[in-house]
Amino acid sequence: MIRLGIIGYGYWGPNIARNFSSLGEGVEVAKICDMNADALKKASTIYKNCSFTTDANEVLCSPDIDAVAIITPVSSHFPLAKKALENGKHIFVEKPFTASVAEAEELVELAEKKKLVIMVDHTFLFTSAVKKIKELVDDGTMGKLHYYDSMRVNLGLFQSDVNVVWDLAPHDFSIMHHLVKDKPVALSAHGQDHYKSGLANTAFIVVHFESDFIAHFNVNWLSPVKLRQTLISGSNKMLYWDDIEPDNKIKVYDKGVTVDSKESMYEMIVGYRSGDMYAPKIGQTEALKEEASYFIQAINEGFTPFNDGKAGLEVVRLLEAAEKSIHNQGKTISL
Amino acid sequence: MIRLGIIGYGYWGPNIARNFSSLGEGVEVAKICDMNADALKKASTIYKNCSFTTDANEVLCSPDIDAVAIITPVSSHFPLAKKALENGKHIFVEKPFTASVAEAEELVELAEKKKLVIMVDHTFLFTSAVKKIKELVDDGTMGKLHYYDSMRVNLGLFQSDVNVVWDLAPHDFSIMHHLVKDKPVALSAHGQDHYKSGLANTAFIVVHFESDFIAHFNVNWLSPVKLRQTLISGSNKMLYWDDIEPDNKIKVYDKGVTVDSKESMYEMIVGYRSGDMYAPKIGQTEALKEEASYFIQAINEGFTPFNDGKAGLEVVRLLEAAEKSIHNQGKTISL
Amino acid sequence: MIRLGIIGYGYWGPNIARNFSSLGEGVEVAKICDMNADALKKASTIYKNCSFTTDANEVLCSPDIDAVAIITPVSSHFPLAKKALENGKHIFVEKPFTASVAEAEELVELAEKKKLVIMVDHTFLFTSAVKKIKELVDDGTMGKLHYYDSMRVNLGLFQSDVNVVWDLAPHDFSIMHHLVKDKPVALSAHGQDHYKSGLANTAFIVVHFESDFIAHFNVNWLSPVKLRQTLISGSNKMLYWDDIEPDNKIKVYDKGVTVDSKESMYEMIVGYRSGDMYAPKIGQTEALKEEASYFIQAINEGFTPFNDGKAGLEVVRLLEAAEKSIHNQGKTISL
Amino acid sequence: MIRLGIIGYGYWGPNIARNFSSLGEGVEVAKICDMNADALKKASTIYKNCSFTTDANEVLCSPDIDAVAIITPVSSHFPLAKKALENGKHIFVEKPFTASVAEAEELVELAEKKKLVIMVDHTFLFTSAVKKIKELVDDGTMGKLHYYDSMRVNLGLFQSDVNVVWDLAPHDFSIMHHLVKDKPVALSAHGQDHYKSGLANTAFIVVHFESDFIAHFNVNWLSPVKLRQTLISGSNKMLYWDDIEPDNKIKVYDKGVTVDSKESMYEMIVGYRSGDMYAPKIGQTEALKEEASYFIQAINEGFTPFNDGKAGLEVVRLLEAAEKSIHNQGKTISL
Repeated sequence: MIRLGIIGYGYWGPNIARNFSSLGEGVEVAKICDMNADALKKASTIYKNCSFTTDANEVLCSPDIDAVAIITPVSSHFPLAKKALENGKHIFVEKPFTASVAEAEELVELAEKKKLVIMVDHTFLFTSAVKKIKELVDDGTMGKLHYYDSMRVNLGLFQSDVNVVWDLAPHDFSIMHHLVKDKPVALSAHGQDHYKSGLANTAFIVVHFESDFIAHFNVNWLSPVKLRQTLISGSNKMLYWDDIEPDNKIKVYDKGVTVDSKESMYEMIVGYRSGDMYAPKIGQTEALKEEASYFIQAINEGFTPFNDGKAGLEVVRLLEAAEKSIHNQGKTISL
Repeated sequence: MIRLGIIGYGYWGPNIARNFSSLGEGVEVAKICDMNADALKKASTIYKNCSFTTDANEVLCSPDIDAVAIITPVSSHFPLAKKALENGKHIFVEKPFTASVAEAEELVELAEKKKLVIMVDHTFLFTSAVKKIKELVDDGTMGKLHYYDSMRVNLGLFQSDVNVVWDLAPHDFSIMHHLVKDKPVALSAHGQDHYKSGLANTAFIVVHFESDFIAHFNVNWLSPVKLRQTLISGSNKMLYWDDIEPDNKIKVYDKGVTVDSKESMYEMIVGYRSGDMYAPKIGQTEALKEEASYFIQAINEGFTPFNDGKAGLEVVRLLEAAEKSIHNQGKTISL
Repeated sequence: MIRLGIIGYGYWGPNIARNFSSLGEGVEVAKICDMNADALKKASTIYKNCSFTTDANEVLCSPDIDAVAIITPVSSHFPLAKKALENGKHIFVEKPFTASVAEAEELVELAEKKKLVIMVDHTFLFTSAVKKIKELVDDGTMGKLHYYDSMRVNLGLFQSDVNVVWDLAPHDFSIMHHLVKDKPVALSAHGQDHYKSGLANTAFIVVHFESDFIAHFNVNWLSPVKLRQTLISGSNKMLYWDDIEPDNKIKVYDKGVTVDSKESMYEMIVGYRSGDMYAPKIGQTEALKEEASYFIQAINEGFTPFNDGKAGLEVVRLLEAAEKSIHNQGKTISL
Repeated sequence: MIRLGIIGYGYWGPNIARNFSSLGEGVEVAKICDMNADALKKASTIYKNCSFTTDANEVLCSPDIDAVAIITPVSSHFPLAKKALENGKHIFVEKPFTASVAEAEELVELAEKKKLVIMVDHTFLFTSAVKKIKELVDDGTMGKLHYYDSMRVNLGLFQSDVNVVWDLAPHDFSIMHHLVKDKPVALSAHGQDHYKSGLANTAFIVVHFESDFIAHFNVNWLSPVKLRQTLISGSNKMLYWDDIEPDNKIKVYDKGVTVDSKESMYEMIVGYRSGDMYAPKIGQTEALKEEASYFIQAINEGFTPFNDGKAGLEVVRLLEAAEKSIHNQGKTISL
């Protein structure tokens, strides 16, 4: 039986609590901590055999707690996570993992020494869509990958503590890291802060790799529409993932015929695509529940999850570089 | 009566011929030149009172020709255009205007000295969609503009003489130049050439301006789908233009309510937009016919068209800078 | 404090329980009944201060119960509802209200005599989309209504106890009844049972009214895609509601310009619409929670809800007529 | 060399002229007749070796004409077609073939006696989309067909001489007739005329067959949006054809897994489809040019085209029955 403490019961915390508690036997949501008493009161109407506190130390230092879910703003991840690890607790940390590469490295090292599990909550990796894409990449369907190009733009929901890169890009960075074996070597990013808040609300990021693979990310808080589009091109197939679509989220395209005449070229100019398209059935699994289960399993069986501290660290490395590049007018940052 | 000579009767030339000849009285397609005899034969079945030649000089030097449409690959624009201007002919030049800023500047200067009209064929500026967007910008509906972000990706139709930037970005650069009064000051671009052809097939371009306006362009020959999306954000409204949509090409969004509580913030996270949307009726005018008519009118009435040589030059300035930046790993190029 | 008993904890029952219990003070889910012990066990992990039973009479006859939610197959609605009313309990009945007009009439009469509230669970009436449409109809935006045309087709999920009309059409019949003041006078329906199950899986229904208003319903279990489209045409505006769309569920169209020339007529032939379009922001309220709250309010304040027994009866009247017409090869049935 | 006369040069006639004349050697547009002198003048600027007349008899009786294309309102089809056949000319008739079954039967008989070709211009049968669907039906991919359900609704473009059934349904009736081998036996239709014009602007038609196949057609002039949706369900696959979509016009769906548990049933309720989807590449052929070529070929080679007078007659049979049923409040009409 893993006894879980949860620190942070704001927007995302209730989902974490609900999913872990839905796992049934083997895990128990034992303590919930939030500085907001109203949030705790709300939690108390749902979780009966659970204690509540406004003091994080009651979770971090409690001998009754085996693992801690840290669902707080990123600036607090490091001190909370460090204390949890020092007290021998496995940790499940909201993304992004930490506010800096140095913090992430220290936590990874500490967890290794203590033989504790770190899992970073990159929930998207557990969605049916990403699992299907990973399958298509890993089984060779896509062929050699050429590029990853994502657009994640939102409707004016600004964060006050982090810029748009730290808010939105962790999703895409983690998915790319999950899918792509090639090693990123350099990054360049441009951003703009139209409201003089000190935080870019619009950013465009390019990542170069050792190979000729290239990645591009467009993140934006100032968009009229929510767009969640990812293009992945491979030598065999090309893939378009539109996460907003209720149906047909993933479309896999044949590369199509070779253009060997002027006529076929002219036809392509006016055409919309050159080959057949296939849209695999995407299941409706609850990603977060699966991730919660995977965390418990990793603790019980002692394996290293793919979304561990090192994976979280690589995402933070890209975030940190992107911020640095933005502050230096797009200067290329070596990774 | 303007007697028009057309040089180049490949993919686009027939459209030019058809639209100018459909204008009726006031203009006559008098000569068509192409190096391909088959193309000329095809033209001869349609245009009865027209002569045909494989020698461009017969158009450029003919005393019977008032204006020349140059619909050839970009590398030949400069010598053909220069000779036409030197011979006192107005010119209608396929986009991009020239292969370099220096060429464009020389042509602009020459035309000014000779008091001849240069029009660059940025057909998109004459579409109902762009005209509607310009109206929304000019009448203040949009408010102060924040960014221009376009995605123009295609299904694997590679050009062999120019890279993807020179092929696809002229559309977007010319539209942005048409809409935005702010002055671009610097550009950074990244590209990739996956097939070792020496020509980038994928490129991401950021343009910075004197103000906090920012522009971003994503052009790509390696996409599974044809995407033609442009986001324009203003202080009053935000606009999404999807040129592939048969209906509702332009959607104008209210910025929506201010987020003033946690509940409304949480609602926005799961919502798709924050305000009403309005999709103006877009007419079905034939852009090229309108542009052809505008060229003839500019000659007859002696005014300077908005898509003149200077406008064409500004597009070439961005293209040249983008290519230079790509070759220098995204180095920022001053404009 | 209203003490609610729930009979039926299968697919929909848990949603009923969750939403009523989320209302907070003023209502308590006091008893849950299901014949399936596993379902009860599941419920017992969530609802702590609640008793569980496999015997409906323990709910229907208990002096501790003020209102009963009947969330069982339609064939059992009448006996359960009748007994509940006889025992002085308000009832909330899953749609369709009853299996026949006679049953519905008896329940309506009984509730009137006993001064008890009947609410039929036509949840759709509480969605933001339907509320917005009702607003547009009631405030005159739409003008005089011309037709209601809905398509509700599904992906092969067959019911074994009722045909496709009883399964899917209650939604559309209740929405139409909610929006349209005109009186339906006759109905004709055609259906097909491709699998010899005795139950039509495909049905097409036309309803005529006293006025020239006409309604049409297309319901189908054999569709490759889920479609939820409703067209409503009025003398001022026309409306298209696509409930599958994540965004822009409701589009309100201007009727557009009058066609006064051959040219404008030809343009319309190739065009996609004739006027501007407006897509109002649709909120994200939880329809079922709102409906639950409205039921409790109706009991406490003693008013008649719009989705009362009489409204439920009108839906059943159409269902019964449709089934009769299908069995008589589309014969017109007077209402 | 087939010398073609064209009667009617209004909206569609120019397309007929252009496509036949584009066939090159083997066919010549020799005479064009229209009662409107302006239309003829327009034609004369395009077709040089052609004569023009306002008198149909100059086409119908000319010894220089081998075949006549009749592109006039439906009411004139019969007298023109009859005279053409009597004068030994093959005929290409705009759809719908005739204004009545009796007329169609007389023309079919006359053509047989005279051994002349009748082709009815059901252009849709030559589109890449319909050809692909026919292929999927004929090669067994679809399995045994269950239903054909089409929706063809338009934006308020009223005809003044025929009702909405005669205007829009010929497309769908001809496609269904082309695809489906089963024999239709009865039809029921309902319509409404909201503007007291004497012509229904909205109609819903059901066709029953000898087998359990069923067809349904929704045609409407009063829609806010243009919809062109056809669902075809077969025992193996189901197909959704959306002709408005620029891409992915045809989607072929697996029927999906059998529902064998409550969990899978509940998943289907919230899901959007149950199996994979495949969208074949649809070419961009010019349907009308292909049809024109097929007409010339049928004359030269002496075969009976699939869109011959008999096929046209079957479409008229359905149109006539639909109109009769509408006038009799949906009464079932035997075919």
